[in-house]
Amino acid sequence: MDERTLIKDLKSNPDKEVTIAGWVHSIRKQGKITFVILRDRTGMAQMVTEGSEIKKHDIRNETVLYATGMVSADYRAIGGFEIKLSGIEVISRPVKTLPIIVNDKADFQKLELETMLNNRVLSLRNPVRNVIFKLQAEIIDSFRTFLRDHGFTEVCTPKIIASGTEGGTQLFTVDYFDRLAYLAQSPQFYKQMLVGAGYERVFEIGHVYRAEEHNTSRHLNEYVSLDYEMGFIENEHDIMDVEELFIIFLFNRVNENLSPILEQYNQTLPVPKKIPRLPVKEACSILEKEYGKKMRSYDLDPEGEKLICEWAKKQYSTELLFLTEYPASKRPVYTMPMEANPDFTRSFDLLFRGLEITTGGQRIHDYQMLNDAFKSRNLDTADFDYYIDTFAYGMPPHGGLGTGLERLTAQILGLLNVREASIFPRDRGRILP
Amino acid sequence: MDERTLIKDLKSNPDKEVTIAGWVHSIRKQGKITFVILRDRTGMAQMVTEGSEIKKHDIRNETVLYATGMVSADYRAIGGFEIKLSGIEVISRPVKTLPIIVNDKADFQKLELETMLNNRVLSLRNPVRNVIFKLQAEIIDSFRTFLRDHGFTEVCTPKIIASGTEGGTQLFTVDYFDRLAYLAQSPQFYKQMLVGAGYERVFEIGHVYRAEEHNTSRHLNEYVSLDYEMGFIENEHDIMDVEELFIIFLFNRVNENLSPILEQYNQTLPVPKKIPRLPVKEACSILEKEYGKKMRSYDLDPEGEKLICEWAKKQYSTELLFLTEYPASKRPVYTMPMEANPDFTRSFDLLFRGLEITTGGQRIHDYQMLNDAFKSRNLDTADFDYYIDTFAYGMPPHGGLGTGLERLTAQILGLLNVREASIFPRDRGRILP
Repeated sequence: MDERTLIKDLKSNPDKEVTIAGWVHSIRKQGKITFVILRDRTGMAQMVTEGSEIKKHDIRNETVLYATGMVSADYRAIGGFEIKLSGIEVISRPVKTLPIIVNDKADFQKLELETMLNNRVLSLRNPVRNVIFKLQAEIIDSFRTFLRDHGFTEVCTPKIIASGTEGGTQLFTVDYFDRLAYLAQSPQFYKQMLVGAGYERVFEIGHVYRAEEHNTSRHLNEYVSLDYEMGFIENEHDIMDVEELFIIFLFNRVNENLSPILEQYNQTLPVPKKIPRLPVKEACSILEKEYGKKMRSYDLDPEGEKLICEWAKKQYSTELLFLTEYPASKRPVYTMPMEANPDFTRSFDLLFRGLEITTGGQRIHDYQMLNDAFKSRNLDTADFDYYIDTFAYGMPPHGGLGTGLERLTAQILGLLNVREASIFPRDRGRILP
Repeated sequence: MDERTLIKDLKSNPDKEVTIAGWVHSIRKQGKITFVILRDRTGMAQMVTEGSEIKKHDIRNETVLYATGMVSADYRAIGGFEIKLSGIEVISRPVKTLPIIVNDKADFQKLELETMLNNRVLSLRNPVRNVIFKLQAEIIDSFRTFLRDHGFTEVCTPKIIASGTEGGTQLFTVDYFDRLAYLAQSPQFYKQMLVGAGYERVFEIGHVYRAEEHNTSRHLNEYVSLDYEMGFIENEHDIMDVEELFIIFLFNRVNENLSPILEQYNQTLPVPKKIPRLPVKEACSILEKEYGKKMRSYDLDPEGEKLICEWAKKQYSTELLFLTEYPASKRPVYTMPMEANPDFTRSFDLLFRGLEITTGGQRIHDYQMLNDAFKSRNLDTADFDYYIDTFAYGMPPHGGLGTGLERLTAQILGLLNVREASIFPRDRGRILP
């Protein structure tokens, strides 16, 4: 078999014979000739042949084949080139009727979420859906590239753990030989420990698990968290500074490399210069004053997050907003309190187009203060010895954050349900496929 | 506080005043003056001051501090520069006696594995131990960079699954709301499905879980698998070709960027030109003829792997060896059989310095053949519908592999136990820290 040419490289091969390979996307008869669109991982190409050839080889939609032919420029063809077929080798045929239509854009848009997820492999073959995870891969790579360039070390921390990060609620249990273990809700404790182990700056891209009962468009029970943690900081603003730079880096890269994907979703991705930082207390005043919405205990519900983003867009022309200084009662035990008013903390969320995508903050690094914090919440410090002990041997001021990969992906493309941005989502009712 | 200078950048600041920050590695009095070695994430630096300053600030080993002073070249000092201290700001003090010695190289080498792992944060502060995971991060990044450059898409597949990859054994169970689920042994099914979803070439860096009872120096119950899977291949040799290129890429990069780490472990990393490919049947004949070792049913035990690597080193001057064409009985159900003799398969392992680090092969892509394969092993195809169904709608020939990140790390550095190459290892007896 001849060396395979990728469809994206047809433009470098005008008037040459090439062999391409992929899935048959569509077949259209026009009198004696037939147009076949072939789809590979890099794009789609129009091939032209006689109808009898299609019949002879019994070619249907989603047949996998190698196709050989001469490339010629044709402005009417997708991608601007057409292949006049001289040879076909079928390598795999559909043996069942397709349960969903792969190639119909209009129909695809109407596809119910459940049908789409039940037929995940086929629904991902649709080019519009397929690119979601090419964008996601670009986000992952941007996160890694950016942080490595800023002196961070990538780490892989355990997901099977002996006790929860925040005290035992919302944990999945694992039968671990003769004892009970849990699935990690976040790499929180471990990334802090690794700051203290001398790495100072660490990041992780890994799964986290939340046994939350609620089944909303914003929640997954297994998702990918983009985490970093850094030592020798002044306060939580250092953490936000790094995230701000990352967002700028990411958005620039997406605009540069993946603008066709944004176009497919009718999205633009304006690159912020700065991301405003607004104490949550002030956000609550604004919500009350501007929208007549009263929030309990200085925290925002999903509607509040949407409204404050609306406000910020009008006020600052920004789609991104840091909310800062959350009340201690709403944040985990290890969150650093404000000196001036310890009922509030050095913490923040990042909202993007109405949705919280990041939670972060400065952490307590003083051994005694951390012990007291655990006790004040009636948590048994013995369960967390392996973590708290880290702070007894010299620990720099530090902080970090976790960003939901699927949420970030969904917000960039304007997807309505975070499940669309999870390749095989896990929720209350779904562990298949 | 002045802007912090990293210790690696002292050489760019001769005769300037800088502020560095880190952990006190050691303190050595010499008459009225005292030498303090400070350690940050980039290296160690010698600082000199009067003994009274150390006493005044109550500075001990592992105290975290900011230190300001003038940089001067001094060939006797570690790194070639010394800082004459003019200011010290302590930011965190050890409040308990160190349970292990962090800075004693001789003692460190004697540290029992269990003690080392029980005191993981402190044992990782020792620079010799610390660099293991800097190498590991470089392996991860090399894998990703190499595969992205070869048209692979990074994916994140679920670890909570409804049924095992290889039929239900050795799986950890998870209590998933009102039903039982499992932790994925490998991303095998999902990466194949994503080849079929049109990505053609995918890779994943993620945790996998093996509920194996045995507690050896080569096994972990949670480890990181470097996986890839690629479509439109001729046969399993295409998969090995890619791994060969990856190994060359990785070894070159480690030699270029991390040769000081190799030196610390007295290791060299010769870059192979080619990696020999030896059918396992022949390997067994060689073992019998050369070493009088008889292997049962064409499979190698750990001693056999060591011996065949010894032989390959003598024969081909190689530390890497592909063993190929494993018997079908020793490989998973989805492995592609050889046409000529279906008792053997298009599969391979990669051995490196006596240890298997990779398992891979071509997979069955024909729907009927796969169904038959499941049935011939008395597996209920209904449990695997979500996977097998993928093959009913056009699937290219494909294959892939999984490499154990910790094993690869350990073999590069000559570590005797794979646990040393897992940042927080999980085994039969350990889920802490």
